Amino acid sequence: MQILKDKILKEGKYLGNGILKVDSFMNHQIDPALMKEIGQEFANRFKSVRATRILTAETSGIAPALACAMVMELPLVFARKHMPITMAANPFTERAESHTKGTVVDLNVSPEYLKADDRVIIIDDFLASARTITALINIVASSGAELVGIGAVIEKTFEGGRAKLNHLTIPVESLAAIKSFDNEQINF
Amino acid sequence: MQILKDKILKEGKYLGNGILKVDSFMNHQIDPALMKEIGQEFANRFKSVRATRILTAETSGIAPALACAMVMELPLVFARKHMPITMAANPFTERAESHTKGTVVDLNVSPEYLKADDRVIIIDDFLASARTITALINIVASSGAELVGIGAVIEKTFEGGRAKLNHLTIPVESLAAIKSFDNEQINF
Repeated sequence: MQILKDKILKEGKYLGNGILKVDSFMNHQIDPALMKEIGQEFANRFKSVRATRILTAETSGIAPALACAMVMELPLVFARKHMPITMAANPFTERAESHTKGTVVDLNVSPEYLKADDRVIIIDDFLASARTITALINIVASSGAELVGIGAVIEKTFEGGRAKLNHLTIPVESLAAIKSFDNEQINF
Repeated sequence: MQILKDKILKEGKYLGNGILKVDSFMNHQIDPALMKEIGQEFANRFKSVRATRILTAETSGIAPALACAMVMELPLVFARKHMPITMAANPFTERAESHTKGTVVDLNVSPEYLKADDRVIIIDDFLASARTITALINIVASSGAELVGIGAVIEKTFEGGRAKLNHLTIPVESLAAIKSFDNEQINF
């Protein structure tokens, strides 16, 4: 997705240790025009999977997932890191490690909003080590729903996340795949 | 906003202690069609305030704020509860208590994305005690930016938040104002 790659080259900042800062348009500030395009692109790529629901994790997955949900006209569920008191008992819970915060969090999804007859697309901001996405995959499995697609805005191919998803026979789509940060440069 | 009130009456669940569960369309699952309408309604109400940026707090503020940002074509900044390692040093930080989680969190906004020449609309999911919104107001003040509007999807008028905002000479808009939960009923 060329406008995304251009944006990453223009505003992305490599901070070392494999960390790409995209706070100016996705992880702290959000560029709504770009987010609309991202939603449209995901919708195009997943148009034949007959999804019934989109699943993401708070926080940074919400914007691209909502943009996609708006185009596909599907309900969006975001896994919660802390169980609010409004959450029903016995949610689907999976542990995930945050790459950029160095912390471990539980992702919780209420069975009210993920059903055995659902066909689910998982959308997240990054596909890197696939730890968050794997936790979401496990939540989908626990619910009995069918996983029909995985989409990430930015993939860091050198972190091996995609290899962990290779056993899945569903489309795994990223909109900009970064191969390396050699010499502090972002290389697609 | 009638379709929002209808949705609250149909799907909202009063849990006691002033807590309204709207997890089916805003706080856990998001209804993207409704969210688009909410964004359009905020955009209509704030069309004359000449805003340059929208500010919200993670997590549940992001969806309505993004929907509004998409219509108004303005950048959206969401205050972060945990400082990711990508965040620049010395953010604007304010403490806020979460009503539905019973915890205290710091809200952090990087000075990179909130400038003294900005005109800011604050958007959040609820206006109840106004603790989160007050923290965001203080962040705007710290940045030197001008606050030009405050919008909440749902207001609980009996929690006194609006009274705390009365000293402000800017529009404070809520799209559905709940006056009471007398007899377990939702009363607008």
